[in-house]
Amino acid sequence: MKTGSEDNLENYLSQRRALVEEALERLIPGEENAPSLLFRAMRYSLFAGGKRLRPILCLAGAEAAGGDPASVLPAACALECIHTYSLIHDDLPAMDDDDLRRGKPTCHKVFGEATAILAGDALLTQAFTLLADPRHMPSLPPLTRVKVIAEIGKAAGPFGMVGGQVMDMAPPEGRGEVSFLDAMHRRKTGAMIRVSVVAGAMLCGGDPMTIKALSSYGERIGLAFQIADDILDVTGDPGELGKGTGGDRRLGKVTYPAVMGLEASRRRMADLVDGALTDLEGLDERAHPLRGIAKFIMERKS
Amino acid sequence: MKTGSEDNLENYLSQRRALVEEALERLIPGEENAPSLLFRAMRYSLFAGGKRLRPILCLAGAEAAGGDPASVLPAACALECIHTYSLIHDDLPAMDDDDLRRGKPTCHKVFGEATAILAGDALLTQAFTLLADPRHMPSLPPLTRVKVIAEIGKAAGPFGMVGGQVMDMAPPEGRGEVSFLDAMHRRKTGAMIRVSVVAGAMLCGGDPMTIKALSSYGERIGLAFQIADDILDVTGDPGELGKGTGGDRRLGKVTYPAVMGLEASRRRMADLVDGALTDLEGLDERAHPLRGIAKFIMERKS
Repeated sequence: MKTGSEDNLENYLSQRRALVEEALERLIPGEENAPSLLFRAMRYSLFAGGKRLRPILCLAGAEAAGGDPASVLPAACALECIHTYSLIHDDLPAMDDDDLRRGKPTCHKVFGEATAILAGDALLTQAFTLLADPRHMPSLPPLTRVKVIAEIGKAAGPFGMVGGQVMDMAPPEGRGEVSFLDAMHRRKTGAMIRVSVVAGAMLCGGDPMTIKALSSYGERIGLAFQIADDILDVTGDPGELGKGTGGDRRLGKVTYPAVMGLEASRRRMADLVDGALTDLEGLDERAHPLRGIAKFIMERKS
Repeated sequence: MKTGSEDNLENYLSQRRALVEEALERLIPGEENAPSLLFRAMRYSLFAGGKRLRPILCLAGAEAAGGDPASVLPAACALECIHTYSLIHDDLPAMDDDDLRRGKPTCHKVFGEATAILAGDALLTQAFTLLADPRHMPSLPPLTRVKVIAEIGKAAGPFGMVGGQVMDMAPPEGRGEVSFLDAMHRRKTGAMIRVSVVAGAMLCGGDPMTIKALSSYGERIGLAFQIADDILDVTGDPGELGKGTGGDRRLGKVTYPAVMGLEASRRRMADLVDGALTDLEGLDERAHPLRGIAKFIMERKS
């Protein structure tokens, strides 16, 4: 699929998003299962209108490695389950205490704290079941499956996302350095973004050179994505964002614009995206979607 | 190992416990890792003096299937990580709001709620990493590994433990039936106990007949274990239990003694243990530890 123009990329992303929505609908157990309350809470947050960036990156990673994106949909859904669980737990009163996410009441506001904690736990566990169950991706070699599960576990766990979330709770004075911000975001958001691309390629038997290129690409766009987020919080249009701006400063969050200024943040983001495009230089036109996504991250308005 | 007398069983359990402690110490990342706060919280709860019933059942399942118990230690540790995460989240203010567990302050009392939630998340994720990482149990066939991960995921997830926890939050009037109690406990505690035995045997290449026998055994002792718990809360010695008794009634929890009376609960438990012993009839002396554990569950004082 060509992604030369912005329109093409928009089309590509919405087609991919539709694939992911359909797969989530099919692969995540419905509310007719007992206890219904749990499945309602899981699905409420899972279908709350996310961008599906991680699953789309997984499909694009598969494509870049020469595979069939549709064949990795269960893994793509598992990645979205892990992302959604992390948002549910992040929004809890003991954590960020958010009442709204994407303009909708957060899981604990609708279902109560206990159910929200358990819905997050269930989504995390279900992700690994989706990855491991041989009925999904039946032609996948078991050794590849095992390696992907281990990679995703590492990215989501204490050395990845969860570790980054704990670092994010450190007192502001301990984190005024760019190196701290980098280390925290590499784990908090970067690790899962990186592993999404890499898992897609691994699942399709991507060769070591391709995996290495995609890993570096994923690391760079992961960090660029976070810098873009920080910039949008300062300069974004609240209407397009679906939430107010300036929240980071009010919450005393340390951000890239706060630490290095707005212009330097923009330059850093552009350099990361350039580097990510360079990472893909050895890959053919099947990596075009990844190239488009890298630019999209830098230019997004919400 | 013979477990004919009570002394032998005590020896067996404490030797097995020592194996598990040593493996946990070795396999769970230390506090020198960053962020130290997270690893401290994980290890605080993991080394808070549990009975290690699930990992010991995993080792005993391996032995009953003719395997080397030491070879399944990483999986045994993963099961204990999942158990510990469930206790940490269960104790949270939004859930059971417990200040003490086994006489020690609960994770959130020591580290705060946010860190406790994340320590639970990290332990759950780390469990799957332990199971999947090919550096652990290196000679295990990948297909077996994948099947075990899927089984454990199912037992821990919305159709197993987490689902049971949500059922446990249902209002007392909806749950005065033995059938509801059975269904809830089969998921809340039974599923993980069952899968602990079964995983041990699967990892050692146990044949389908053995797996089936151990699955039935595990289901029965899982339920017997819960009935024993409920009985101990009524009749136990607070000194031996390390906590007060009568807590279930004060919390308005529906228990087996409350629903069917103390004597009928004792009979039900004895019948389940008898059934579990019958399940093992086709197995040789290598299933002796499992026989001992079944009796131990019925006779335990704490």
